Amino acid sequence: MRPLLHEVRHNPLLWLLVFVPVVLAAAKLKPEAHTLLFVLAVLAIVPLAGLLSHATESVASKTGDAVGGLLNATLGNLTELVIALTALKSGEYMLVKASIAGAIVTNTLFMLGAALLLGGLKHHVQEFNRAGARFQAGLLLLATIALLAPSVAGQRGVVASTEFTQRLSLGLAVLLIVAYGLGLLFSLKTHREVFASAQTTEEGEVPWPIGLALATLAGVTVLVALVSEVFVESVQKAAESFGMTPAFVGFVVVALVGAAAEMASAFSAARKNRLDLSVGIALGSAAQIALFVAPVLVLASYVIGPTPMDLVFWPAAVVMMFFATITAAFLTSGGRSAWFVGVLMLMVYLVFAMVLYLLPPQTQ
Amino acid sequence: MRPLLHEVRHNPLLWLLVFVPVVLAAAKLKPEAHTLLFVLAVLAIVPLAGLLSHATESVASKTGDAVGGLLNATLGNLTELVIALTALKSGEYMLVKASIAGAIVTNTLFMLGAALLLGGLKHHVQEFNRAGARFQAGLLLLATIALLAPSVAGQRGVVASTEFTQRLSLGLAVLLIVAYGLGLLFSLKTHREVFASAQTTEEGEVPWPIGLALATLAGVTVLVALVSEVFVESVQKAAESFGMTPAFVGFVVVALVGAAAEMASAFSAARKNRLDLSVGIALGSAAQIALFVAPVLVLASYVIGPTPMDLVFWPAAVVMMFFATITAAFLTSGGRSAWFVGVLMLMVYLVFAMVLYLLPPQTQ
Amino acid sequence: MRPLLHEVRHNPLLWLLVFVPVVLAAAKLKPEAHTLLFVLAVLAIVPLAGLLSHATESVASKTGDAVGGLLNATLGNLTELVIALTALKSGEYMLVKASIAGAIVTNTLFMLGAALLLGGLKHHVQEFNRAGARFQAGLLLLATIALLAPSVAGQRGVVASTEFTQRLSLGLAVLLIVAYGLGLLFSLKTHREVFASAQTTEEGEVPWPIGLALATLAGVTVLVALVSEVFVESVQKAAESFGMTPAFVGFVVVALVGAAAEMASAFSAARKNRLDLSVGIALGSAAQIALFVAPVLVLASYVIGPTPMDLVFWPAAVVMMFFATITAAFLTSGGRSAWFVGVLMLMVYLVFAMVLYLLPPQTQ
Repeated sequence: MRPLLHEVRHNPLLWLLVFVPVVLAAAKLKPEAHTLLFVLAVLAIVPLAGLLSHATESVASKTGDAVGGLLNATLGNLTELVIALTALKSGEYMLVKASIAGAIVTNTLFMLGAALLLGGLKHHVQEFNRAGARFQAGLLLLATIALLAPSVAGQRGVVASTEFTQRLSLGLAVLLIVAYGLGLLFSLKTHREVFASAQTTEEGEVPWPIGLALATLAGVTVLVALVSEVFVESVQKAAESFGMTPAFVGFVVVALVGAAAEMASAFSAARKNRLDLSVGIALGSAAQIALFVAPVLVLASYVIGPTPMDLVFWPAAVVMMFFATITAAFLTSGGRSAWFVGVLMLMVYLVFAMVLYLLPPQTQ
Repeated sequence: MRPLLHEVRHNPLLWLLVFVPVVLAAAKLKPEAHTLLFVLAVLAIVPLAGLLSHATESVASKTGDAVGGLLNATLGNLTELVIALTALKSGEYMLVKASIAGAIVTNTLFMLGAALLLGGLKHHVQEFNRAGARFQAGLLLLATIALLAPSVAGQRGVVASTEFTQRLSLGLAVLLIVAYGLGLLFSLKTHREVFASAQTTEEGEVPWPIGLALATLAGVTVLVALVSEVFVESVQKAAESFGMTPAFVGFVVVALVGAAAEMASAFSAARKNRLDLSVGIALGSAAQIALFVAPVLVLASYVIGPTPMDLVFWPAAVVMMFFATITAAFLTSGGRSAWFVGVLMLMVYLVFAMVLYLLPPQTQ
Repeated sequence: MRPLLHEVRHNPLLWLLVFVPVVLAAAKLKPEAHTLLFVLAVLAIVPLAGLLSHATESVASKTGDAVGGLLNATLGNLTELVIALTALKSGEYMLVKASIAGAIVTNTLFMLGAALLLGGLKHHVQEFNRAGARFQAGLLLLATIALLAPSVAGQRGVVASTEFTQRLSLGLAVLLIVAYGLGLLFSLKTHREVFASAQTTEEGEVPWPIGLALATLAGVTVLVALVSEVFVESVQKAAESFGMTPAFVGFVVVALVGAAAEMASAFSAARKNRLDLSVGIALGSAAQIALFVAPVLVLASYVIGPTPMDLVFWPAAVVMMFFATITAAFLTSGGRSAWFVGVLMLMVYLVFAMVLYLLPPQTQ
């Protein structure tokens, strides 16, 4: 525990950890004070994200960036999974789908774009292992095509039968999970050396012992999940009081805060010129949501949901996922980055955010 | 003939050649026994495909992989051309178009994906000449855009006049054939050296003399065509008795069996670490169907068809062709492959197959 | 002035400059002789394009190809901007939009394709700085997504409110101009060395002094703008007498002649094996129209137009922009070119031109 306490004492940001019990208590005592809960939840998530970042980097420094990135994405996305399961139980399938699509687009464009911009502002040109980026982009391309299929097939001028879309969604869910599992086998076992980092590690901070790092990762993830639930309950109402449309909230705000922990890690790695870790976290996180979280939710809906959930998305969401994947695949294919690459990704994200922000409410 | 007889005697698979006369006789005697004819036809196509594979490799060992791949694609696609011309004569344009689209998607995703997977299971990382892959992918991209044009232009909220789509299809057919001819000039004449193989040939089998190889190529192709016709006549009814939808049969089953000969060659080349040949066969075959077979059928429909055939495809077929091209272009652009690249291609193919398999019959 | 007069005396093409005053006079005297004015305008634009080409190369030889390409694109597109502003004043928004979309597609596919073909016919294989091509293709991808957004969002089964599309178009216009400005900062300032030319300059002609070159650039651009206006006024009627559809005229003919000056530069650079300059002019010009000219026109419409102009394009135009960008990004990503790469681009352009040429007039 010594290194953890040392970290807390010397990093003023972590003093915000005091808001974790505050927001959880406030959620019990004043569940209707949405705007207050929203602010408290964001204040509590920020230091938790910071702790996660340091713990993940400690693990990554022992296991190599590919595994570190995977670990990070897995634990970071527990948040999204827990939130979505809560929404699933109450049958709010539109919210689940919006948060899935939003998380894919946000991680692909905003998280990676901001990491490349932040890294590029410090380092003139940054290199990364393009085999890793290609691998994640390939997984995302498969997922985009799979999520597109039910929407396109359902638009053939004939109302597709519910049975058809449900059987197709179930089949696609199994297919995506199998692809994800094979992808793990490939990147962690048979071709592990392909994903080794190009750059040497220039570690400034002392890494924690592996046991403490893993325990912190697990414990903080649970806290993030708890706080995130308060956040999700309050964000809708709080956003309305700020004048945001529901589509914007589901797609952008929830996704941004839900991925705050991974963003802290991805940004910090980019500043330290460890772009492999950044790309692994951002694209790996998007791929994991598309190929693991989404299918698991479809399967879970048969057990805990009121009715089975299908994978038919709002057409504009599918178009956004497609363009996010194309943009990321194109911009990362060179294995080199400078600040403007990050700007381009953020601009594409801004186009989507602008559309969602301005959409007249009745057409959503 | 000696090497051919030697091959037949020592390769038990070729003993299946006995089914060639059997299926042709059975088709005369029992034309209504669809399921029997289907099984016999598949049993007869397998050894013919094997012979074609060896003959093509013998030619390829003398001419270089690029020319060998082209020869293979040309002769292998004679099958598809003969089948389609038969269907054209009887005016079954939907079947013709489904088999064109299915052949493009199947060759691009299934044939190439399975070749990369089979090769990758034997070799850790395989390299191939990416100039060749880029060239074929470029041709496919042009063909996809050309086949998309009449469908998109015909969907502008106004029913496009028949005259418009027919004139456009005729113009596009001529344009595609010209592009294909210029592509041959480029790859076989002016820039032949660009398509030279990267890897050294590690030939295990003794190549046949060129005369025998060419004669076998031609003779076996004719037999494949004859057997394939029996196959196509029986497959529809046989498939129904197995519970498959017509869309699935036209797009997947016909395409898989129609390309069996080329697949044997592509898979065997991949196992021998000659990926240039595999990529040349798979993408070259898809490009040839799109840029040569399809336009020839449009032109032929003016002579032998009841009415001119246009190039307006079922929208979902165009979407699948587009994504097959994008996927192949993206995954082959690096010039390196491992088993998971094959898995990704096969998974995209499986998504399409799943949609077609589950489609409710009334919406097809 | 000496080098300019020397050039005029020794280059018979420049004797066509006599048509510049002729066409301007004829436009005053015989404004209704459309076919005559059309022919005179084309004859006058050709030598002006030639002068622009030499002047631009003189500047480029002093500043490096990236800056030279930018200068060329900026001044070349003044023509398009002046034409579009004229159309804007009279509220002809369909013409403005058609000429924007047409200019993007024509510069991306025709200008670059023809340059690569012409260069490839002289040089066996040509190399270019792929960082430059990637940069421009990235800008084009962003612009395509931005121009697609209002069209897709407006098609969601609900008629989008005018207020929504206008606010979105205004926001996107500002976003695109900011992205363009940051792109200039990146390519001309912070990462200028990335865009340095790969090949050594093999200058045959004596470059002009910088002052004369800049003055010629400016003066000739104004003359091109004047003549182009006569051209645009006459082309519609003249085209009809040649049997062309309005869509074909707006998208193809106006774009081809409007970009004549830049084409002369791009083609001449390609013949001199300076592909960086060609790619910079062609893709840079397309990017500048998409990220600078189009947004400026939206902003200008609030000042000089009868009503604000939005960025909702004809769906087929958006599809063409998307495929033009994909094609250019794919074919230039290797950094190497041969004649067939140019053929492929020109063929894609021909597909689009064929659709527009054959479209029945009532559906446009």
